[in-house]
Amino acid sequence: MNEFDLIRRYFSRLTAGRPDVVLGVGDDAALLAPPPGELLAVAADTLVERVHFPAGADAAAVGHKALAVNLSDLAAMGARPAAVLLCLTLPRADEDWLAGFARGFGALAARFGVALVGGDTTRGPLAVGVQVIGYLPAGMALQRSGAQPGDLVCVSGTLGDAALALAGPPGCDAASADWLRARLDRPEPRVALGMALRGLATACIDVSDGLAADLGHLLEASGCGALVRARDLPLSPAYRACASVASLDGYRWALSGGDDYELCFTLPERRLAEVQAVCDRAGCACSPIGRVLARPGLYWEGPDGRERPLPAAGYDHFAAGGEGP
Amino acid sequence: MNEFDLIRRYFSRLTAGRPDVVLGVGDDAALLAPPPGELLAVAADTLVERVHFPAGADAAAVGHKALAVNLSDLAAMGARPAAVLLCLTLPRADEDWLAGFARGFGALAARFGVALVGGDTTRGPLAVGVQVIGYLPAGMALQRSGAQPGDLVCVSGTLGDAALALAGPPGCDAASADWLRARLDRPEPRVALGMALRGLATACIDVSDGLAADLGHLLEASGCGALVRARDLPLSPAYRACASVASLDGYRWALSGGDDYELCFTLPERRLAEVQAVCDRAGCACSPIGRVLARPGLYWEGPDGRERPLPAAGYDHFAAGGEGP
Repeated sequence: MNEFDLIRRYFSRLTAGRPDVVLGVGDDAALLAPPPGELLAVAADTLVERVHFPAGADAAAVGHKALAVNLSDLAAMGARPAAVLLCLTLPRADEDWLAGFARGFGALAARFGVALVGGDTTRGPLAVGVQVIGYLPAGMALQRSGAQPGDLVCVSGTLGDAALALAGPPGCDAASADWLRARLDRPEPRVALGMALRGLATACIDVSDGLAADLGHLLEASGCGALVRARDLPLSPAYRACASVASLDGYRWALSGGDDYELCFTLPERRLAEVQAVCDRAGCACSPIGRVLARPGLYWEGPDGRERPLPAAGYDHFAAGGEGP
Repeated sequence: MNEFDLIRRYFSRLTAGRPDVVLGVGDDAALLAPPPGELLAVAADTLVERVHFPAGADAAAVGHKALAVNLSDLAAMGARPAAVLLCLTLPRADEDWLAGFARGFGALAARFGVALVGGDTTRGPLAVGVQVIGYLPAGMALQRSGAQPGDLVCVSGTLGDAALALAGPPGCDAASADWLRARLDRPEPRVALGMALRGLATACIDVSDGLAADLGHLLEASGCGALVRARDLPLSPAYRACASVASLDGYRWALSGGDDYELCFTLPERRLAEVQAVCDRAGCACSPIGRVLARPGLYWEGPDGRERPLPAAGYDHFAAGGEGP
């Protein structure tokens, strides 16, 4: 069986019908009929072996994550995922790898009702390019640019788990280490939350490069600053088991670790109860972690109550620059 | 200047406004407002160094070709290009390379009025992933599946030039070799022709893997066969100067060479005059090269008048199989 047969075999079930997919895989382009009056949201992200995942990484986890990071971009806009294109670059036709990849990719696609409508397969160093297309009503997109001074800054879920898994701190019990690892390998795109935040959040971004970097992007786009408080950062029990937050250093993964794929968003304080209700309905916790400031810059208040600048480049950078604890 | 600054510098002029681009580069996803009532055509293709282009290839040519092969897919559907996402995987931030790439990519994007609306940049082995989005009226797509027995088979432009350039036959004069090389490096997507063939062609595909393979795909999708004639294959003067068509072997690049990015389409014979007129208006020649058959299989008639099977896998394969001249 050649590579094309393999791909047909493992991916054909992912191409099953949505009414808006007029023509799926198998022609020069796919044809979609978007819902009348809605906007398209389009994004693309590539995962490269040895950069985004280690050589020999579990194929199902790579399949899951390649789709999840793209769905997370749609979630951050408040868009409803519809279709996906998959560009696979593979060193060789490896049936086991493809079967695992398709399983991970396919389970997530099925869960969000996303149709695989196209892409290509290429021989070369292992890389996975994914492009997603979603829909959303005009005027309802969650952009980065709408934060207002006085707004609360919130994040979904917990922060720093994936980065902590990657760092592999010593003295982490096996159960906590496994839980953190699953957060790294199998991020959950916050699609339902993103859609529910339409009309509530004033700005939104997904946390892929770390809170400091991504909240920094949001603030830059909004022309504001913010202060976040260490004591309000949502940390998982596993995080607290594996990283001591007795010192400032224990917050580094939560502040600037990356790979969280949670949503960071801003809202007027008077909408907080509504937001908490939509978070509950979307099945994930949302935590207010700080406030938008009129003055530029991102600051954090440590558990010692002292306020420090938090450079967008992240904790490591600012530690090296002498601003660390 | 870091990689992100470089990319912003070289690509910002490609993101200039189209009225349907509600939000371009710089948020988690781009937002497009497709024309009411039209379908989206979406396609993605990746070019990998050492697979699709040699190490050290001219960056401007890589930029041109990465976009051109994707626009060619839209052309084959009869779609009007609108927006593009670019996923660049680069071993390092190389300003000269990026400047060249952006020049080649940008000139073609500007010529077709395509807006760069998103994508990403990744560290890794050099590869260029491009995703295109186009529009077309519902019911007007050129699919592969509509060919009817008795239809004429036509191709645009000339065949085999790129494959011949890659083969580098001895005894090719410098001017011809240069011309063939430009056909390999700078394919011209037949966008205007594809749009003009709406409602005229019964089926269409772009010739990327060679006439035999791609016409084979069209016939398979249509449940038909075809006979093409060697004497009617459109060959450029440079092709004739560099490959002797005195023997059957001289047709190999035109029959199965690949990288042509011409359109191969079928039409009822009574529409031929109309098609010739739209080809003239679209600025490229169209040549009838054979006819669709009710019986399955692809055949070609050599200059000797003898009919031979032409396997979709291409000339090399069939030559090795003992069916060659």
